[in-house]
Parts: sequence; structure tokens; C-alpha cells
Amino acid sequence: MSSYKVTFLPDGEVLEVEDGTTIMGAAQKAGIYINSLCGGEGVCGKCRVQIADGRFRADKHSISFLSKEEVREGYALACQARVDEDAEVIIPPESRLEAEQILMEQPVVDYSQPEKLSVARIPSDPMTLFEPLVQKRYLELKEPNQEDNIGDIERIIRELRTSTDYKSFGMSLRCLQGLALKLRDNDWKVTATIAKHGDLWRILQIEPGDTTDRNYGLAVDVGTTTVVAQLVHLKSGNVIGVAGSHNLQAHYGEDVISRMIFACGNEKGVNPLHGAVVKNINSLIKTLTDEKGLTPEDITCVVAAGNTTMSHLLLSLIPCSIRLDPYVPTANIFPQIRANEIDIGINPEGVLETIADVASYVGGDIVAGVLACGMADRPETKVLIDVGTNGEIAIGNSEWMVCCSASAGPAFEGGGIRNGMRATRGAIERVKIKNGEVTYSTIGKAKPRGICGSGLIDLIYELVKNGIINSDGKFDLSRNSERVVEREGKPEFILAYAKDTETGKDLTISETGIGNLIRSKGAVFAAIKSLMDYVGLGFEDIDTFFVAGGFGTYLDIPRAIGIGLLPDIDTERIQFIGNSSLMGARMALLSAHAFERTIKIAKSMTNIELSTYQPFMDEYVAAMFLPHTDKKLFPSVDY
Amino acid sequence: MSSYKVTFLPDGEVLEVEDGTTIMGAAQKAGIYINSLCGGEGVCGKCRVQIADGRFRADKHSISFLSKEEVREGYALACQARVDEDAEVIIPPESRLEAEQILMEQPVVDYSQPEKLSVARIPSDPMTLFEPLVQKRYLELKEPNQEDNIGDIERIIRELRTSTDYKSFGMSLRCLQGLALKLRDNDWKVTATIAKHGDLWRILQIEPGDTTDRNYGLAVDVGTTTVVAQLVHLKSGNVIGVAGSHNLQAHYGEDVISRMIFACGNEKGVNPLHGAVVKNINSLIKTLTDEKGLTPEDITCVVAAGNTTMSHLLLSLIPCSIRLDPYVPTANIFPQIRANEIDIGINPEGVLETIADVASYVGGDIVAGVLACGMADRPETKVLIDVGTNGEIAIGNSEWMVCCSASAGPAFEGGGIRNGMRATRGAIERVKIKNGEVTYSTIGKAKPRGICGSGLIDLIYELVKNGIINSDGKFDLSRNSERVVEREGKPEFILAYAKDTETGKDLTISETGIGNLIRSKGAVFAAIKSLMDYVGLGFEDIDTFFVAGGFGTYLDIPRAIGIGLLPDIDTERIQFIGNSSLMGARMALLSAHAFERTIKIAKSMTNIELSTYQPFMDEYVAAMFLPHTDKKLFPSVDY
Repeated sequence: MSSYKVTFLPDGEVLEVEDGTTIMGAAQKAGIYINSLCGGEGVCGKCRVQIADGRFRADKHSISFLSKEEVREGYALACQARVDEDAEVIIPPESRLEAEQILMEQPVVDYSQPEKLSVARIPSDPMTLFEPLVQKRYLELKEPNQEDNIGDIERIIRELRTSTDYKSFGMSLRCLQGLALKLRDNDWKVTATIAKHGDLWRILQIEPGDTTDRNYGLAVDVGTTTVVAQLVHLKSGNVIGVAGSHNLQAHYGEDVISRMIFACGNEKGVNPLHGAVVKNINSLIKTLTDEKGLTPEDITCVVAAGNTTMSHLLLSLIPCSIRLDPYVPTANIFPQIRANEIDIGINPEGVLETIADVASYVGGDIVAGVLACGMADRPETKVLIDVGTNGEIAIGNSEWMVCCSASAGPAFEGGGIRNGMRATRGAIERVKIKNGEVTYSTIGKAKPRGICGSGLIDLIYELVKNGIINSDGKFDLSRNSERVVEREGKPEFILAYAKDTETGKDLTISETGIGNLIRSKGAVFAAIKSLMDYVGLGFEDIDTFFVAGGFGTYLDIPRAIGIGLLPDIDTERIQFIGNSSLMGARMALLSAHAFERTIKIAKSMTNIELSTYQPFMDEYVAAMFLPHTDKKLFPSVDY
Repeated sequence: MSSYKVTFLPDGEVLEVEDGTTIMGAAQKAGIYINSLCGGEGVCGKCRVQIADGRFRADKHSISFLSKEEVREGYALACQARVDEDAEVIIPPESRLEAEQILMEQPVVDYSQPEKLSVARIPSDPMTLFEPLVQKRYLELKEPNQEDNIGDIERIIRELRTSTDYKSFGMSLRCLQGLALKLRDNDWKVTATIAKHGDLWRILQIEPGDTTDRNYGLAVDVGTTTVVAQLVHLKSGNVIGVAGSHNLQAHYGEDVISRMIFACGNEKGVNPLHGAVVKNINSLIKTLTDEKGLTPEDITCVVAAGNTTMSHLLLSLIPCSIRLDPYVPTANIFPQIRANEIDIGINPEGVLETIADVASYVGGDIVAGVLACGMADRPETKVLIDVGTNGEIAIGNSEWMVCCSASAGPAFEGGGIRNGMRATRGAIERVKIKNGEVTYSTIGKAKPRGICGSGLIDLIYELVKNGIINSDGKFDLSRNSERVVEREGKPEFILAYAKDTETGKDLTISETGIGNLIRSKGAVFAAIKSLMDYVGLGFEDIDTFFVAGGFGTYLDIPRAIGIGLLPDIDTERIQFIGNSSLMGARMALLSAHAFERTIKIAKSMTNIELSTYQPFMDEYVAAMFLPHTDKKLFPSVDY
């Protein structure tokens, strides 16, 4: 078979591929990530590339995503275009996907060695014992005789009772079928796989010999944007791999609301969304097991955490009423199921647990986060916030917990703001203005393509600090800043000049964009403040303020305080905890006790419905200034 | 379509059937039962009939069951031969099946009205509450609002907690899928089907509207010979139908041992046996539901009781080690399963419970019997015996219980005895000899075809009582009885002369036959006696002596005592309880408490393995006389 040379621009990467390889395949080989929501099926149109030189073959239907002019200019979908001779391929900025967008929890923790737990940056929880939800036990059974001729399964249970602390065991019928031969053909030496199920341990399978080492679990954070999975060795508790991918549901809508609308458009609307996330998880399973020379059958347990909509779609439950007043999900607490009931391809007897939700807009991801940050375990009051399109906030301690969700709008994810973008390669993530001089840094040190949430917060802070905008977010035109220009009759601030940008155009921010960001930060702060007032506490009563999620990770704390997004407390009390949803899912996977705690957390947390809560409305209006109408709330802010 | 006249002989029944109807089908229409083990599939060869006049069509393969001569004489398999013109069909005695062979529990009891319970002839059990294993609850849910917006399933569970005594609920994933629409499309009025499962109630399904009346259960006695099912209305507790059929497994062997040998002959050997009994039950379900205008989906719960081998084959478990020293089953206590896991065609969410076994030869049928006779409920000591090919004996009270199984041999079922037969039409069931004059009665008042167990006991008793045989079972040839003749050099007693019998031959019994019956009765009595000695009690300590099963029902108690089969106690203390296995299964179906008791009974009963128990051997030898070597044990026996 002939092979051809493909050159990727602007990277300059060159590689040899076989005839008929897709551009997508070639890019993957070259380590270049091209955007794809549909997983290479030619249906999302996100992987547009321009073939500058060279011939290619492509399915006709991919043309529907391209204008006639683009086709003429050599544009094609990377997943459909197949190499037909040496080619030069230009990857436009919008088609680039950067891996750093997916937040993998760090660092990797060895839970089997409790003395090392502190490295998790998580308050150590003395009640979280190492006791994986699914365990394997190697049994050398006494051969029966006439004095001891109980049933085969009763013999296994008797041995399990002796060799574990557990007393109650159940089993499936499948685990009994064929058992008699399995024991006698293997000299009564077998391994029992047991799973915690309610108040008993259920025997999932009996395998010949000692297979205790081949027992793996998967913790999954099912995010609206990304799906991240950790592969955990259940015998040792060691995390042995982590992988993430973009949620393929994005094809059906960017956020949970648009996906719900899609799902509820017709009777079978849930199916494609369910299928998409299952495909995500199965492909992560394949990646992780291939990498370690394992098979999916070695995985016996999956613990998934996601927001309420994600949980519903994962389990193929109708999410429609989540979106409609009075915001009712099908279930907040989910049954343990066999993973293959929803086509998750692990061990056929393997189980799947879904972390319980609190309410329609405070999901299992927050419950997992509350578990991970130890809020429910100690008397000191803690706050957990997870800010994305929705901002979810939980406040509490071992005695009580309250939570709420505020619609923050898409500003923190770069939405609703011209030149706004997600925190991927080329996004401006840091901004500094000094003496009219603007400096910035971008993700991946690339030429700037836009500005992401953390960059926006920096920018707004620098603008108000330098007097370029006022506390109300309007430009102070009296300052005559050379970077403030009028476009289409409205003032804009030029953050990066055309000559320096990837797109060849000025990157600017308008009053509309600034206003959107102020509304977003106002909603989050108002939610925190009204929740604090609800429980009668002030910010000084907060022991630790945890910021979870991808957004938090890149946040500059003093500036986040400076614009009035975070409360003005000692910055040492503010901690980023990364992907606490994944962390909590893994803790539940490794501790039956921790898993049960998630159910207790979900049940005991009081959810405040902000959309009809008048104090929140008042707080929201008060928070529409930089940093706030009540400057006494932000004593350290000095502009 | 043309129709033809079929005349059945010797009955003389005439009926019109359509062209192509099988002889079997025609006979069923005429209310005449023809033997069939394979369910009309032409593979058991048991339904031979002789077509005396008229043409018929038949599949060629059915000829393999017939000799050339028989084919010439017009013999055919009734299930394969199809009517081709008017015909006269002779049903030979061996092909007749009589319904009375199948013991349906009597009478029908209304468990919802406890005051009527006494008619069950069962000691009333104050602890057996009416609380069916599967229940339907009609719920009128409060529509959610913002102050009350818990999840849909949590709303259902909250209502169930209010309207029942139950607190813990689980559910399957299927029951959540589609739930949101089901509630909203039906004005929040639904019926929940809940099943007891371990310590919680599991929600099996949610149906629109009020379907509480459509909820039926099936109690099944899975016997080696017959399978009997009762259809029970779970709302009222009323038994609304009962049906029985011959266990189709008979095709693979008459008794449990030969079926186990078949099952263990090759890797998939269990499958046909499993399939056969499933076919039995499904066809009983069809019969019972058709009769009442119901559908199999209306049945939500099955409780099956059988001996250990039957339970294993029902659940498709390998029974091979049951047969081999040290006699170990796969399981004694079985998991609750969905009935469709083993292809039992009821409601797809319906459950199946199998009554627990004590050991390889004391099965769920005995446990159900112990439940039914109330042994475990009261301080008085009771005995339950169930005599067939094996005799199972349980002795105990609310404090302790012991049991054993003795291989009685086939004599009580007419096996191993020339002219012996099962208790079907034409079997001599009663015998009396007075002044050398023999009188007898047959089942169905038919011409005698042979002698069944109860007739044999009568006969042996009359023979020894009249001095025709001695206590050792040998003929007293000095008496010169005209009915004692020598055949092939050995003496035999003529019970019925050729002129009076269906077969046209003398019905006789030889010393070999008498010896076989003595061994059978000796084994049963020795088992009872050694079990009594084991617990240190005498027969005077027995409150009630229950005789279960088909054999018991036709037994003449004084004569059973007279030959030394039953102990010589006041006959008022001996009670027949019929099909106590079916009765116990139904009690468990109607009472979660009773079902749990069966597990406790199975766990707490001590099984004595007689095959290596020396006292049993000694008792067995001592019991090889009529009534016994120790006549003091039978003071009331006056011969």
C-alpha cells in the first residue's frame, strides 16, 4: 500500500501515513488534537481543516457543513477527508482542541496507605476507611465431607464471613449457575467478587483460582463539557490511569438546558444523549485498559458523578421536568445497577453506582465535591463553590448543610462575550495593565485567539483598578486611553492588536461584554451572600472556602475578590480543589462508607430555590457594581 | 373444512372434530386423558392408541416407538396421528392418564379472612399475617410545587411510607425509565407494585391508574412426578384456580436419581430438564389465566417448592453433586430472581422465590410442609412424613427440628412389584380378605389393572392378618389357600383373577414383591424411630403425626400401623395434610413473614444423614418383620 506525506500547518509537523488515512487519524498520530464532538462520525462539523495542497477523498455528506466557497478553498472535515497524495493541511484555530481544557484531578493518591492521604489536599476524614465498593476475596475452601456438607454457596458465604467483617451476603442466580463444576474443577480454590449493595454484600461472580489482583474500578466525572475517568486498582487503591474526553452530547447542545430541550423534543429524544455519554465512557475505558494491558472485564465497578441532568441522561431517565417549574427530577437517589444495563462495557457482572443528587440543579458532582472537601465530617463551617454556566454553592459542616444553584450565564466560559472563549490553547488567561501598558499570557503560550474566564476576571479587575472603567462597568471616556476606541458607535477596549493575534483581528471587550461578566459575578456572589444570610453567618465564620472545577483552577484569587466574585476573606482560607467531583467519585469507589455518606449528604442538604427567593434578588441588584454597592463588604479592595 | 366423527373405545364417547385434528386433541375435547410425558411432541411414546377403524395421517418418526406388528395392527401415537376420516380409536389401559393422580391441595382457603383459616386443617399460626410477597398500592400523589419538589421516585416512596408499614424501598432502573412521563400523563395517579426483597421492599413497576385488583400470584409444587400450581388473587388472598400436570422431565428419567444422571451426562445436560419443568409451569400458567380471562402479565409473583433436585433443575443449577457422597447441593437458600431469568412467562418484572432446602435429600417441599403443618410455631412436638420413592421425615417444635431422608425404594409407588402401578385409574387401592374371600376396590371403579401403594399395604396387612403369610413375609404353605399358587416354582397370591382384570391376566403378588414392600416400610419406620431416639423422645411424646403427599391421602391408617409402617399411636393423632408443599408455598406467597420463616426453618433444621448412621441400620434390620421384631412397639396390632 502506498503511503503519503502529510504536513500540518501552522505546526509544521510532517508525517508519513498510509493511503486512505483520514486527516483526523493523521493528526492524532502527530499528536495534534482536532476538535470533534461526534467522535469522528462526520456529523458535528467541528473538525474543519483546509487542505492547502494535495488531493483528498471525502464523503459527500460532509460537504453540508461547508459553504461552496469553502469547498472551493479546500476546506473539508478532517474525520472524513482521506489522504490521496502528499498533502499540506492547515488547522484553523477554531478546529483546535487542547487537552488542558480537561481537568484531571491531581495528585494521584494511594488510598491504601492512609498516612499518605494528606497529599490529597483534602481534610483527612477519619471515617473514610479503605473498603472498596467491589472487592475480590480469594478463598481456599475446605472440601465438603459427610460431617460438613452444606451447599456450595453456603460454604462460600461461611468462608467470606470468616475472612471478612461482613455478615450478610446475597447473590445473583447467574453466580450459582455452573458453580458446582467451577468449585470441583478448581480444587475448591476460587475468588469471589463481592459488591456492597444496600445493607448486604452481593456475590457478583466466582472465578477459578486467585484473581484478586485483577480488580479495577472506574471513577467518572460526567461533566456537561468533559467526561473524565480514573482507573483505580481496587486491591491497592492506587490510581493507575486517568483520561478525559469532550462530552459527545455537545453535538446536541452546549449546555444542559439545550440538551434537555433536545431530549424532550420527541419520545426517543433521550436515546442519542444517553448513547453519546455511554460512548464517551466506553471509549475512556478502552483507552485506559489498553494503556495498561488490561481488559474491560477487569473493571468490576464504576462510580459516576455528574449534575442532575447528566445523571439522568447517563441512566436513560427522562430529564424533561428538571427544566420546568417546579424543577423535579425522576430521582435524586439512584439504584445500583449492573453496568451493562446501560451498555457500559465492563465486566458483565460489574456494578455501576451513580452519586445521588440533592435537587434538579445541585447534582451528584456537588455531593461528591462535598464528600471530597470533608464538609460533612467536621464541625468547622466550609463553603464549596463550583462555577460554570451554573454556579453551585454548598455551605455547611457536620451538623447542617445548605446549597443553591445560581444561573451565572456563560460569561465565565467565554460565552456571551465577543472574543470570549473556553480555557483552551490560545486563550488569554492572565492580564495585567500598568501605566496604560497591557501585558497578557495565553494558554499554551500560543498567539492569542480570545479570552477565557480567568483572563476576563483579570481584565475587568485591571480596567477598574486603572480607572479605565468605573464601578458600574462603563468606560470613563474622560481618561482618553489610547486602547479605548469607538466601534459601531460604542466604546471598546483593545486587549490585543491584530498584528499580535492568531485571528489577525483586534481582540476587544465592549461594555456589553463587561456587563455580562458583572452579571455573572453578581449572581454568584449574591448566591453565596444570601445563603450565608440564610444560615445567619458572616464570611468571618467560614473555615475554608473551596473553589472547585476547571474555572477555579486558573483563577487569580485577589482579583476574583477584587471584582466582587469571591468574598473578601483571608486568601489563605480560599483553596482550589480541582475536579472534586472526580475526587469524590473515587473516594466512594474506594470506601463503601464514603459512598453511603454521599447518600446521607444528598438527603440531608437543604436546597434553597433562588429563582423565587427575594433576598437573592436584592443581593443580586446590590452585587451589580465592582466590587459591590456596599464597599464595606470588600475592605481590602483598594480602588 | 370437512369434519369427522371419532369414537373412543372402550368409553364409547363419540365426537365430531375437524380434519387434521390429532387423536390427542380429540381425546382432550372428549374429556379423556391420554398419557403424555413430552407434552404432545411425539418424543416420549407414551400416548400409544390403536385405531381400530378409519384412516389417519402420522409423522413418520412416531413409528420408532412402535413395532412393525403394532403398526400393522393400527397402533399410533395419539399426539401425532391426525384424523383423515371417521375413526374408531381404542385407548389401551397403559396409555390412560387419570387426573386424580395429581394431588391438588384441598380445600381452598380465603386467607384474607383469618377467621376462616381453621378450615385449612392446619394449626392456626398467629404469626402468619396476610402480607403477600408482592403487593400493589394505588397512590394518588400530591402534585409537586416549589415548596415540595423532591424527585418523582422519592415522592412515590414517601407516599408508600405513609400508606404502608414499610420504610425501606429499593427499585430497579427499569422502573425509573419513563417514570416522569407516566406520572405526568396520568394526573399523578399510579399503582406501585412492590415486592419483599431481603430487608426492603423493591418497587417492581409503576402502572397508570388503579390496577390493584389485577395482581395474582402462583404457588407451585414442583414434584418429581407432578407439577401443581395454584393461582391466587393477591389482593384478597383467594385461591381462584388450581391445575396440575405430569412433570415433563419424566421423559429423561422417572425419579430424581435417573434425572440427575441424565443432567450430568454432558455439559448442557441440565438444559432439557430445566426446559421441561419451565414448560410445565408456563403451560399451567396459560391454563389458569385463560380460564379466568387473565393474562400471564397479571401474575407478579411465583413461589415454588420442590425437592432439592427439582429446585436445582428449575433454576438451571448443576445437580450432580447432590447424588454423590457427601451429597452437596449448589445452594440450599436461593436468591429471589426475576421469573423471566428462567423463562417463566409472567409479568416481566415479576419475581420468583424458591423455597429453601435443608440438604440434598430434604428439600423445599418438606420445608414448605413444615411451615404448613405449623411444626415450627408451637411448643408441642409434631412429626411430618412424606413418603414416595424417598421418605422424608421431620420432627420438631418451635424449639428444635430434626429431619432425615430414607430411601424407601419404589414399592409405595408400585415400582419393583409385578402388577404394581401408580395410583391411577384401575389401580386396586383397597383390599379386604375375610374367610378366604377377597374383595377390593379400584380407582375410578374401573376394571383392575394393577395395585398401587395403598392397595399393597392393605393387601400385606390382610395376608398376614389372615395367616396367609407369616411375620417374615413368607407364605404359610401349610394353610393351603386356594389363591396361593405356584408359578415358575415360586408361590404367589392371586389378588384378582384374569376374567375380572383389564389386562385379561391374573393379578398376583409374590414373596419378592412382599419383601420389597417390607423393606420399604422398614426403611420408613426405622427412619422415624431412629430420629425419635436421636432426640430422646418416644411416640407418646408426639402431639400430631402429619402424613403428607399423594400416598398418604389414600392410606388406611390402622393397616399402615398394622404392617409397621406408621408407629402404633392413637389414630386420632395421625392426620393427612395432602399436598403440604403446595400449601406451604401458598402460605409463603401470601405472607412475607411466612416466607422468611421457611428460610429460618431450612437453616435451623438438623439433617441426620442416615446412610452412615449406625442406629438406623440396626432399626432397619429390626423393622424387617410384620409389624416389627419388637412386638411391644405395636401393642394394638392383634395378629
